[in-house]
Amino acid sequence: MRDSINTHFEEAVRWRRELHRHPQPGWLEFYSTGFIARRLCEWGYDVRLGKDAVAPEQRVGLPEAAVLDAEYDRAVRDGIDEQFIAPAKGGLTGAVGILRGAEPGPTVGFRFDIDSLEITESADPSHRPAAEGFVSANPGYAHMCGHDAHTAMGLLLAAHFAENRDRLKGTVKLLFQPNEENLSGAQAMIANGLVDDLDYLFGVHVGICLKQTGQIGLNVFDWLAMSRFEVTFTGRAAHAAVLPNAGNNALLGACAAATNLYAIARHGAGASRVNVGVLRAGTTWNIIPDKAYLRMETRGVTNEINEYMILKAREVLEGAAKMYGLQLEVKPAASTISAVNSPELIELGARVAQSLPSVREVVPACSANGSEDICLMMQRVQQRGGKAMEILLGTPLGGGHHSTTFDLDETVIRNGAEFFAAMYDAVAGNRPVE
Amino acid sequence: MRDSINTHFEEAVRWRRELHRHPQPGWLEFYSTGFIARRLCEWGYDVRLGKDAVAPEQRVGLPEAAVLDAEYDRAVRDGIDEQFIAPAKGGLTGAVGILRGAEPGPTVGFRFDIDSLEITESADPSHRPAAEGFVSANPGYAHMCGHDAHTAMGLLLAAHFAENRDRLKGTVKLLFQPNEENLSGAQAMIANGLVDDLDYLFGVHVGICLKQTGQIGLNVFDWLAMSRFEVTFTGRAAHAAVLPNAGNNALLGACAAATNLYAIARHGAGASRVNVGVLRAGTTWNIIPDKAYLRMETRGVTNEINEYMILKAREVLEGAAKMYGLQLEVKPAASTISAVNSPELIELGARVAQSLPSVREVVPACSANGSEDICLMMQRVQQRGGKAMEILLGTPLGGGHHSTTFDLDETVIRNGAEFFAAMYDAVAGNRPVE
Amino acid sequence: MRDSINTHFEEAVRWRRELHRHPQPGWLEFYSTGFIARRLCEWGYDVRLGKDAVAPEQRVGLPEAAVLDAEYDRAVRDGIDEQFIAPAKGGLTGAVGILRGAEPGPTVGFRFDIDSLEITESADPSHRPAAEGFVSANPGYAHMCGHDAHTAMGLLLAAHFAENRDRLKGTVKLLFQPNEENLSGAQAMIANGLVDDLDYLFGVHVGICLKQTGQIGLNVFDWLAMSRFEVTFTGRAAHAAVLPNAGNNALLGACAAATNLYAIARHGAGASRVNVGVLRAGTTWNIIPDKAYLRMETRGVTNEINEYMILKAREVLEGAAKMYGLQLEVKPAASTISAVNSPELIELGARVAQSLPSVREVVPACSANGSEDICLMMQRVQQRGGKAMEILLGTPLGGGHHSTTFDLDETVIRNGAEFFAAMYDAVAGNRPVE
Amino acid sequence: MRDSINTHFEEAVRWRRELHRHPQPGWLEFYSTGFIARRLCEWGYDVRLGKDAVAPEQRVGLPEAAVLDAEYDRAVRDGIDEQFIAPAKGGLTGAVGILRGAEPGPTVGFRFDIDSLEITESADPSHRPAAEGFVSANPGYAHMCGHDAHTAMGLLLAAHFAENRDRLKGTVKLLFQPNEENLSGAQAMIANGLVDDLDYLFGVHVGICLKQTGQIGLNVFDWLAMSRFEVTFTGRAAHAAVLPNAGNNALLGACAAATNLYAIARHGAGASRVNVGVLRAGTTWNIIPDKAYLRMETRGVTNEINEYMILKAREVLEGAAKMYGLQLEVKPAASTISAVNSPELIELGARVAQSLPSVREVVPACSANGSEDICLMMQRVQQRGGKAMEILLGTPLGGGHHSTTFDLDETVIRNGAEFFAAMYDAVAGNRPVE
Repeated sequence: MRDSINTHFEEAVRWRRELHRHPQPGWLEFYSTGFIARRLCEWGYDVRLGKDAVAPEQRVGLPEAAVLDAEYDRAVRDGIDEQFIAPAKGGLTGAVGILRGAEPGPTVGFRFDIDSLEITESADPSHRPAAEGFVSANPGYAHMCGHDAHTAMGLLLAAHFAENRDRLKGTVKLLFQPNEENLSGAQAMIANGLVDDLDYLFGVHVGICLKQTGQIGLNVFDWLAMSRFEVTFTGRAAHAAVLPNAGNNALLGACAAATNLYAIARHGAGASRVNVGVLRAGTTWNIIPDKAYLRMETRGVTNEINEYMILKAREVLEGAAKMYGLQLEVKPAASTISAVNSPELIELGARVAQSLPSVREVVPACSANGSEDICLMMQRVQQRGGKAMEILLGTPLGGGHHSTTFDLDETVIRNGAEFFAAMYDAVAGNRPVE
Repeated sequence: MRDSINTHFEEAVRWRRELHRHPQPGWLEFYSTGFIARRLCEWGYDVRLGKDAVAPEQRVGLPEAAVLDAEYDRAVRDGIDEQFIAPAKGGLTGAVGILRGAEPGPTVGFRFDIDSLEITESADPSHRPAAEGFVSANPGYAHMCGHDAHTAMGLLLAAHFAENRDRLKGTVKLLFQPNEENLSGAQAMIANGLVDDLDYLFGVHVGICLKQTGQIGLNVFDWLAMSRFEVTFTGRAAHAAVLPNAGNNALLGACAAATNLYAIARHGAGASRVNVGVLRAGTTWNIIPDKAYLRMETRGVTNEINEYMILKAREVLEGAAKMYGLQLEVKPAASTISAVNSPELIELGARVAQSLPSVREVVPACSANGSEDICLMMQRVQQRGGKAMEILLGTPLGGGHHSTTFDLDETVIRNGAEFFAAMYDAVAGNRPVE
Repeated sequence: MRDSINTHFEEAVRWRRELHRHPQPGWLEFYSTGFIARRLCEWGYDVRLGKDAVAPEQRVGLPEAAVLDAEYDRAVRDGIDEQFIAPAKGGLTGAVGILRGAEPGPTVGFRFDIDSLEITESADPSHRPAAEGFVSANPGYAHMCGHDAHTAMGLLLAAHFAENRDRLKGTVKLLFQPNEENLSGAQAMIANGLVDDLDYLFGVHVGICLKQTGQIGLNVFDWLAMSRFEVTFTGRAAHAAVLPNAGNNALLGACAAATNLYAIARHGAGASRVNVGVLRAGTTWNIIPDKAYLRMETRGVTNEINEYMILKAREVLEGAAKMYGLQLEVKPAASTISAVNSPELIELGARVAQSLPSVREVVPACSANGSEDICLMMQRVQQRGGKAMEILLGTPLGGGHHSTTFDLDETVIRNGAEFFAAMYDAVAGNRPVE
Repeated sequence: MRDSINTHFEEAVRWRRELHRHPQPGWLEFYSTGFIARRLCEWGYDVRLGKDAVAPEQRVGLPEAAVLDAEYDRAVRDGIDEQFIAPAKGGLTGAVGILRGAEPGPTVGFRFDIDSLEITESADPSHRPAAEGFVSANPGYAHMCGHDAHTAMGLLLAAHFAENRDRLKGTVKLLFQPNEENLSGAQAMIANGLVDDLDYLFGVHVGICLKQTGQIGLNVFDWLAMSRFEVTFTGRAAHAAVLPNAGNNALLGACAAATNLYAIARHGAGASRVNVGVLRAGTTWNIIPDKAYLRMETRGVTNEINEYMILKAREVLEGAAKMYGLQLEVKPAASTISAVNSPELIELGARVAQSLPSVREVVPACSANGSEDICLMMQRVQQRGGKAMEILLGTPLGGGHHSTTFDLDETVIRNGAEFFAAMYDAVAGNRPVE
């Protein structure tokens, strides 16, 4: 019954390359949204777009209107039919496809992220996308984290389900999620109730931990809970020579904060992280700076450890403000949690994997050591009694994730679609092809 | 013989207001350069412009080409005849006017600064320039430090000397200096040898120390030596969650530097200052910052104390770089020194002032507590055997210097011109009007 | 053949309580050294004391002569026969007992640590040692980490081997090690070659990870490599009001160091630690401090991570010294490494444990999350081809380790002796009792 | 009438050397108290001692009872008659001598400080007190600030007044003040009302500003207001490896405080100072420090600037406590203010000085740049309508004040007594010798 995957694989590689050429980052994925929506519609899916896909008020880090419009226009210019992206105008990107099978059965969600990074791809001939002509056409944006392959995998899976609809038990729900990189797309779909009816949820990332084609990771842990904050200190400007005593130095407050944030005690129970990624303060040489702006994040290998980091970070920020007589504003930005795969799915997955020729090794334990907002969806599904699993799929890489020369073995697209199709069959008890 | 000053005073007020409406900051003073040059030419001065006024390679803080061009064009659009500013194209602003008298005598320089601040002037009706229609027409630029009045004073003095040329002994040299605010215009004129032939040098600032019209300060001290530096720390970026240990955190290096710069021990022998006016570091949330950029300055009430601050600051910067394994680049920007008025001129000035009805009080001691690059010119003149004096003239202010509502009593224009004319007569032994 | 252990168990409890009443910390363990030595001699062991037990020059953290003498005298006063501790005078504590069996076989070492903490034990009646009359008689010293039980376990095992000497194959070597707490006793025994002939080495700690009697941990990992340093910054004193600029402030250097030491980036590959446990600087209010002294330590869950921490710490210290123009002295104090149990012994131990009625659970994985200097001995044995294992034994605790109310279930003394006796039989292939 | 001063001068030098040999620091000046009291009694003064000299509850920094007793005993052993120091037992040192003249007139106070430093004097033969046999006999204590000379000057003046009692108008009040160094003796005398009846108050310091014998400074300014604080941060201890997150690190709080205290913005209006002279934190290597103790002081050239420093320092301390979740205790220790000499006395003093052959130069302006608790007495006298003056007397020095080789020209003892005697005559209108 899964021949359709092999049949469409070469096509899926072309899809991936088209998506690769037209990358757009979080809340700007007009090209990929339109690309996906057109196909889902053609294949008979019930398609949800715009406000039906993402809750507008949950979109953290929404770009400015001018950028939203420019990227929308770019997608149209690049050949996307407006009928598929009109609902996404203004940054309501993402698409959901629902397909009801012939017979009753579980509701099974598959989530694929679709956003690119804000990075300029290498044009070096040693970089395969450059050599083979599908390098990013959008300067400053590039699929250097494999989300183009995730999307193609989702479309390949979608094609498979559509062709096998009459044999399907239960309901398929494909969630093409925007803005994973800034960790705010998952929450925007959850807030719309889109995972509330799921009995099963599956997700995937390529190339993390596993660097060989054919490897699959099911027992994945160490997803880091993470919280980001925009921090502003406001003091009082003063002439640095004439009246320095009249100032309240926001730059010094920010520096005291930054240093002491990194000095927060390591947690005895597991990994913690903190970073001040951006600090901007002051206007000119001889004025005591009255404004300082920071972008910072905390992480923890458990939600508790991340909470500990947040608590301590707040103390440090408040103390730094107090030290220099500053006003403090702490604005939460993106955040996510830690979650673990449902043990039953790890076990079932291992059995399913062993039946697939494309799987060469089920790696027994994978430490993710990063953050993914699918964890929010997983927790939601698990809390409501469902089961959830984020798998890792092996592929050799060009440069590492988020480098300018990231590349992957496109076989992983088929491998993932095949495994997900098999898992669906396993949990839904689909009729095999006679 | 000094009636010409009263005659032209009302005109000088109009000049000041025109200059006030068309402010341009350092190396962009095309409007005022053209305004001055046209008049000096008309009045028969030997005028030096462009490379003959300022040494190109000495121009610290030169704006980008696009800005230089735009401000040049703006001056032309605002009515400046290109013949007077063509030599200044590309930021060679400033003008020097030389007038040789009928009889031999000393060479006497008068220096007036012509640049505006980068600040937006208040449009509030309570602010006189706004109420009376000469508020800055150039958003982001404004004469909030009185250099427009200095320039008008210089022009009034120029008109006076021109009308009295046949009675003059010696040579008048009027130095209309660009970019005092960033303290690099004086050095650019010195490097051209423009003060090397001076027997006397006079300069002026309005409104410092003295807040009443009619006050004059001759015994002025506590000019702060000052040095500015652009500091760059370069480390190594790394993913803040996956591999924080691989980074060399330039932001933390900059913060350690900033905090410990302010903590440099106060000097027992007199006032010292330090400021980090700008700090910018990092690119995004989850990357350990590999670049940090600071603008900092040190000051001291003596050159020795400023040298002490520089020495200690370098230790702090080098230590901070060492701490975090960073490359350090320290690029000197503008600087100036401390200087004192020649005692003979203080004494002579006091006698001259007492003969002038416009002087109501010779204030015996004025602590400037700020920095001025005329000190570099004064030191040069004094080292070559000449005498130099920077006077302070009293005026009530609107808002303080560098505030958006700075204003002054325009009478100060006449008072300054009158005192300088009288000092010229005194040092040159001019023939009185018969 | 292991009935002797049950026979002597009650006696061993009395030994433990006597040792508990007479605690002495590192290099001062005269009471326990004499207590052990007397019994080993009585039981026919070849006993090594003084310089034959510990290499004098390896004793890090040796107390002052007056303290060494006072504690020696205290032990004599408390009833220790000087013939057994004369060789230990001056801090050469520790004892080694060697027993050759009737038949050839492997050389098997067992290491027990004998030192107390520098802490005052609770006298509260709710604290069992206080209630039952064996609370520490030495104020400021107390066995709050269970080394008294380790010693009693070692003596119980010694009695067992002595009684079964004629059935023993191979050689028993009991290492009663001083100064584990400051991590310098193991190195002092290694330097004497005392573990070089071992085919097997066993060690034990009670109450870490496992809180129930009957639990045993064989697969123990996460022993933290650790390095301690005494750091001295030397600057220049100066009067804080008259001439602050003349000083080089060692206190500020130390503060910059301390803060930025804690801010060393967490390592992506596993747990790291840093602590500045002591900082002392300055002499009086109005003098800029010219001396600062720190006690600091780094740790890592692998030796590589600890090396990373040391490297970064040195950069921070050097940078802080540079910042304030200070001399820096970094003096290594105690250190230890991370090590893991030999897999063959983990496996064999599991089988042996299952045969013992006292073992209720072999806990599959124990994260130690602390440091132990037996790791140095283990590495030495393993590098020379032997096998080594540090086991953990479960016991409920009163207060936690190093608290003033630490207490344990004395059954653990028998359980440990029994397991070690059984392991000896297993590795040596002893003849069972007929 | 002032021949008596010359007559007794050689004796006064012997007094000074005896006092120099027997130095005792603040609240421990039993030797000098007894030495003074005996002479004042012999000369017919009304002598106030113990509680009548200093208010017990005002004694900041009182040594421990054991030290108080030991130093009392030392004074007795060194030949002081207990009848003169019994009232001082327990640290009530200091003496006041009152002499009523034959005729009515003003009440004129003279204050001399009598305490030594806690410093060990140089025994080098190049150091005159060592060479000439009057080096300090009390290790750890030494008169390295000239208070021995002040005391001898006071006694010489006392002898003079006693011998001339029948010619005196008004009342002489000699205040031999303890504990100037820790700035708490003056307040203890003020609190007893001892300066409330003064019409005039005179004080002296030798060797500050003026380094030549015969120089006198009357227009003395820049006495720094000063405030000292004992600061304690209390957090929570935790094991630095097992559970670092459970700690609240007082050491890090103290370091953040110290660094940012020095970074308090310099005051535009004049000199400010801050020093953390002592920092002690933590107990051992592997415990996160739960206690940190600081001794810090602020100063300002005006009382307002010192208030600014205190205000900012409190913000820094509170912010640091907040940062690390610490309890903060700030305990005021010694403090003093800034004061200026009464202009009438400066003027009168200049005239008096010119009449004295021992005065070679009246230095027109002296910047003290230090702190003195006589300022508290001066303010009190001036606020109640009296006049006050602290003079400076020139002397070449050995090493500087507070160095181990401080030394002075003993002629200054006579010069001071002579000037004070002459000032008394001038303000009281004494009858000259017939």
